[in-house]
Amino acid sequence: MIIQFENEINEVQKEAILNRIKGLKYKPTEVKTQKGNYLIGIGKKDFDIRSIGAMPGIKDIHIVSDDYKLVSRKWKVNPTTIDLGNGVMIEEGGFQVMAGPCSIEGEDQIRKTIAHLKEQGVSIMRGGVYKPRSSPYSFRGMGNEGLKLWYELAQEAGIKIITEVMQVSQIQEMDPYVDIYQVGARNTQNFNLLDELGKNTDKPVMIKRGISGTIDELLYSAEYVFSAGNERLLLCERGIRTYENATRNTMDLNAIAVLKEKTHLPVIADPSHGIGIRHHVAPIALASIMAGADGVIFEIHEKPEEAFSDGQQTLNFAESARLINQLNQTFALRKSFNQA
Amino acid sequence: MIIQFENEINEVQKEAILNRIKGLKYKPTEVKTQKGNYLIGIGKKDFDIRSIGAMPGIKDIHIVSDDYKLVSRKWKVNPTTIDLGNGVMIEEGGFQVMAGPCSIEGEDQIRKTIAHLKEQGVSIMRGGVYKPRSSPYSFRGMGNEGLKLWYELAQEAGIKIITEVMQVSQIQEMDPYVDIYQVGARNTQNFNLLDELGKNTDKPVMIKRGISGTIDELLYSAEYVFSAGNERLLLCERGIRTYENATRNTMDLNAIAVLKEKTHLPVIADPSHGIGIRHHVAPIALASIMAGADGVIFEIHEKPEEAFSDGQQTLNFAESARLINQLNQTFALRKSFNQA
Amino acid sequence: MIIQFENEINEVQKEAILNRIKGLKYKPTEVKTQKGNYLIGIGKKDFDIRSIGAMPGIKDIHIVSDDYKLVSRKWKVNPTTIDLGNGVMIEEGGFQVMAGPCSIEGEDQIRKTIAHLKEQGVSIMRGGVYKPRSSPYSFRGMGNEGLKLWYELAQEAGIKIITEVMQVSQIQEMDPYVDIYQVGARNTQNFNLLDELGKNTDKPVMIKRGISGTIDELLYSAEYVFSAGNERLLLCERGIRTYENATRNTMDLNAIAVLKEKTHLPVIADPSHGIGIRHHVAPIALASIMAGADGVIFEIHEKPEEAFSDGQQTLNFAESARLINQLNQTFALRKSFNQA
Amino acid sequence: MIIQFENEINEVQKEAILNRIKGLKYKPTEVKTQKGNYLIGIGKKDFDIRSIGAMPGIKDIHIVSDDYKLVSRKWKVNPTTIDLGNGVMIEEGGFQVMAGPCSIEGEDQIRKTIAHLKEQGVSIMRGGVYKPRSSPYSFRGMGNEGLKLWYELAQEAGIKIITEVMQVSQIQEMDPYVDIYQVGARNTQNFNLLDELGKNTDKPVMIKRGISGTIDELLYSAEYVFSAGNERLLLCERGIRTYENATRNTMDLNAIAVLKEKTHLPVIADPSHGIGIRHHVAPIALASIMAGADGVIFEIHEKPEEAFSDGQQTLNFAESARLINQLNQTFALRKSFNQA
Repeated sequence: MIIQFENEINEVQKEAILNRIKGLKYKPTEVKTQKGNYLIGIGKKDFDIRSIGAMPGIKDIHIVSDDYKLVSRKWKVNPTTIDLGNGVMIEEGGFQVMAGPCSIEGEDQIRKTIAHLKEQGVSIMRGGVYKPRSSPYSFRGMGNEGLKLWYELAQEAGIKIITEVMQVSQIQEMDPYVDIYQVGARNTQNFNLLDELGKNTDKPVMIKRGISGTIDELLYSAEYVFSAGNERLLLCERGIRTYENATRNTMDLNAIAVLKEKTHLPVIADPSHGIGIRHHVAPIALASIMAGADGVIFEIHEKPEEAFSDGQQTLNFAESARLINQLNQTFALRKSFNQA
Repeated sequence: MIIQFENEINEVQKEAILNRIKGLKYKPTEVKTQKGNYLIGIGKKDFDIRSIGAMPGIKDIHIVSDDYKLVSRKWKVNPTTIDLGNGVMIEEGGFQVMAGPCSIEGEDQIRKTIAHLKEQGVSIMRGGVYKPRSSPYSFRGMGNEGLKLWYELAQEAGIKIITEVMQVSQIQEMDPYVDIYQVGARNTQNFNLLDELGKNTDKPVMIKRGISGTIDELLYSAEYVFSAGNERLLLCERGIRTYENATRNTMDLNAIAVLKEKTHLPVIADPSHGIGIRHHVAPIALASIMAGADGVIFEIHEKPEEAFSDGQQTLNFAESARLINQLNQTFALRKSFNQA
Repeated sequence: MIIQFENEINEVQKEAILNRIKGLKYKPTEVKTQKGNYLIGIGKKDFDIRSIGAMPGIKDIHIVSDDYKLVSRKWKVNPTTIDLGNGVMIEEGGFQVMAGPCSIEGEDQIRKTIAHLKEQGVSIMRGGVYKPRSSPYSFRGMGNEGLKLWYELAQEAGIKIITEVMQVSQIQEMDPYVDIYQVGARNTQNFNLLDELGKNTDKPVMIKRGISGTIDELLYSAEYVFSAGNERLLLCERGIRTYENATRNTMDLNAIAVLKEKTHLPVIADPSHGIGIRHHVAPIALASIMAGADGVIFEIHEKPEEAFSDGQQTLNFAESARLINQLNQTFALRKSFNQA
Repeated sequence: MIIQFENEINEVQKEAILNRIKGLKYKPTEVKTQKGNYLIGIGKKDFDIRSIGAMPGIKDIHIVSDDYKLVSRKWKVNPTTIDLGNGVMIEEGGFQVMAGPCSIEGEDQIRKTIAHLKEQGVSIMRGGVYKPRSSPYSFRGMGNEGLKLWYELAQEAGIKIITEVMQVSQIQEMDPYVDIYQVGARNTQNFNLLDELGKNTDKPVMIKRGISGTIDELLYSAEYVFSAGNERLLLCERGIRTYENATRNTMDLNAIAVLKEKTHLPVIADPSHGIGIRHHVAPIALASIMAGADGVIFEIHEKPEEAFSDGQQTLNFAESARLINQLNQTFALRKSFNQA
């Protein structure tokens, strides 16, 4: 169950509610987010929801049959909107493009990418300054210095930044320069990182599905951040590992349709990693809109063949412009279906 | 390599060509299809293609680096068109809907389905009369009697029939009543069945990807039918088996994009099996168009909850009508992209 | 439920039982095998087993909660023994080695293999005369002529034959020359083939697990053969398809432990296909004994590097001799554990 | 390539070597571990190894064709021995059992477990004080207080401790009380954690294979720790995620055979997580020895049904005693094979 407390609840009232919950053999967890105070009760016994709901100090109470609670659409029917300021919103019923290089490489690259995005009407730029790499001998990113440089240029241009955070100790130093944190596929179940992103920032967090993570595990990971205090969450489908190796990963568009039903959080598609082959990124990006995505994130570079990483799945600016135009038309068509 | 013989090639010429091929340590296989005579050479050595191409009796010769040959787009750049007669074509640049019940259940059901399809402008009806079932105690279909009944009604209405063939011995009896044979996911590598569908029918064959088949294995299976004589082939992506069990299968839309590049054969999407959840069939069907499919096949029933099989993934007629309308609009949009 | 009929049951009694079963809303299927007459009832309702069990004509009745019935150990607690004649038995508590080439290639190869097996005290030889191959251009086996030749030599030497049957039409011609039919991984769900192996032979059938088949699907496939009349069945774990491609398949030894609990049928391990790398076959073969296998089947060849197929996973005779010796010692140790 | 420097190398010599490496277009990384100083060169060009090997300051140089370098058996043929002191060694040719509860729960549980291990001659106890859990509402472990308590009791009894570290900030506080750090399956690619375990401790680290990690990724993860300074590493196979859900994971014993060939590091098997079903843990544990494991780690509890976590896969003390006895006999048999 999820109980939302009244703002003015007092300790005596809270104590009484807690006792009642424990009396039902439910395990209570108090959750205080930036937006509200909740009590999560985990248990199995049937009980009369009205008898608890009527207790003083309770704003509302819901039974949520899913194992995850706060991120479930059974609790919160209305979709969550992520407001990045300056009119940039990620939300159901809208559509956001996030594009940029795999790795931030330097000032020239940043400037050119920003110019391209501005031209295309895109408001959010992706890029990596901390790069998780299988081999310790590969390029691991420009680090926080790269992020600061990027931030200055993006800020100037009115462009928002999404970038990956890899460890707890980076949060504090990155926080002033980040608009959305990305949790990568290898860190989806790095529970300490999730906890800290719940407690120590009010910036939105986009959690990528694990390399072979289930849909439910992704929702649980979001529940970690939410229950630690941060409600501003996005989920991202980026392909899963299967036996098929004609493509880098197997983009699971089913997951987008399922997630849109199960959770109130926005769902983003990453076709670059989802298929991993440059000339196939566009069809998968377009398909993801029809599957229900609220946005796409993809990799672009002025000269993909010279990119520090992921060049084989990176679009050049002409391809990017063409895709963005098609995405907009496809989203408009989908929207017309929903309104019909 | 693939050599296409001249129609008027004589035995002496053929003998000379065969000797030359063997001299290169290439293993030759003669292929006689309903459309042409070919020689497939399997080997590794480099050779001067012109010296062979100039031999009398050869219409053309191609080096095909793929392991499959006759189904490769490296050999045949122009897409294959499947002409079912009466103006019903399955082809790149067009879009065909195939819909119908999982199992053919009886006359009333067939009539109602046909009426619905006519109303929606759909020309191809799917349905099973031989059902592969995991348990021997489940309903296994109405058999050839059901097929005959269906054929009469469909014929009358100008509707084409696609239905699954499960074994060699069924081909002869089914042949007069079938417009397209379907090879199911459990039979994708039933090589004897593939061979016979190459030799003993000139009806088109749609091969579904194996339950955990690779893209290459699907192409090889098509190569079996083609090299046994039947060029009229379609491929079908119907979801693969992965660790994710929130959905029945994992629809692999990547495979559609990849197949459209690798082969000249039409590619069909089966969202019903691909996701297996009724209210998610439509978004995946629409997504498959954007991924590049030349058609979709999905399950419908007047009353899905009463269907003999697969009710949980079957659309009712209202849902079907709505989806078909959206498919048409989505295909029109994709077509406009390709022409831009 | 499974009802075993008395041998002398009459039609009136049978009718009465059938009516009672239908009255419970159970779907009845009569099963007549080479050993007994059964009635399988599929349904959900609780009922008093004694009230049916007391009806005339019933030998015994069991409730089997598994979805498969006749192959379940919940029905038949005692393990099934496969008696091949001349004292060659496959059974729980014993251990059988089956070894031989991937493909039967000719007389010399057969003679040498038989000589090796005799020397090592092995009684069952494997070999393929019909080869399922991904590509239509690969060697597809010597066919029934090869089988007859092999049979003569094996017969002479007192060696039993296990070989793959690929299609219904082969059963009749192969039957005189086969001691155990093998159903390959690509045919595990070829239900027509399974049906016919139930109806048209009394030779034992070893069913390999599908390429990505579940344990339950394997049991269902065995249920097909059993319910069609043939109780002489063996199951074989041969590795499954996963994302890991350092090995040909992922040998699932868990499945052996699980199968030994779920079914009364013998379970055989195929380490050659399970790992697919010659110098790793032995450790996996030995491991499979500890996991509970009742036998192993592996590929050997006088000169693996010259084998027509699967050379990379085939042991030479010296390696084979060494492995067989270790298998015997390992089985003896496992047996001592079970008796302790 | 891997260059091992002489201990007395001077800066001029090192500079010359670095320049030569860069001249070959190899990317050099200096590695300083607790045991030696190395230079790793990543590149593709062929070169004459002797011309570099003869340079002053170089002890030896090897070409390592694997993508991982320092953990490769192509570089270091002799197996790595992990010496825990007091005669407790983990090494090829020996066999170590590690057993204990999933979660450390309190003093009584620790005492009883230690008593059981002492009785069975086991020297290493496993247990979790920081627990990664899918749901934020589950028990997350006793933390460092639990570890200190455990350490005191274990120390007294001469028992070594292996326990999971989940994040960088825990290393310092855990370090005095840990004999082996375990990196869990969800953290196999937590590269920052791996880096810090290389730099900030000289305690051995056992890295579990990722939930769907490849064998190569596991080796790369070990390369991270090694190249950051800590050579005392163990690898652990604990089952992978596949489509089969009759078992918790699919224990990949192939991986043990393959790892023993590819790396000089000891390989441990975890049958508890590998199959996840209590009464099947023993056969899989025994099988893992035959596959080549240098040790096993499994979960035990006085009363598994009351364990805080993982009870369904935990052995009681009687089962544990029986298994340890069988493990010892099985290892003795395997050893006799290797010496034969």
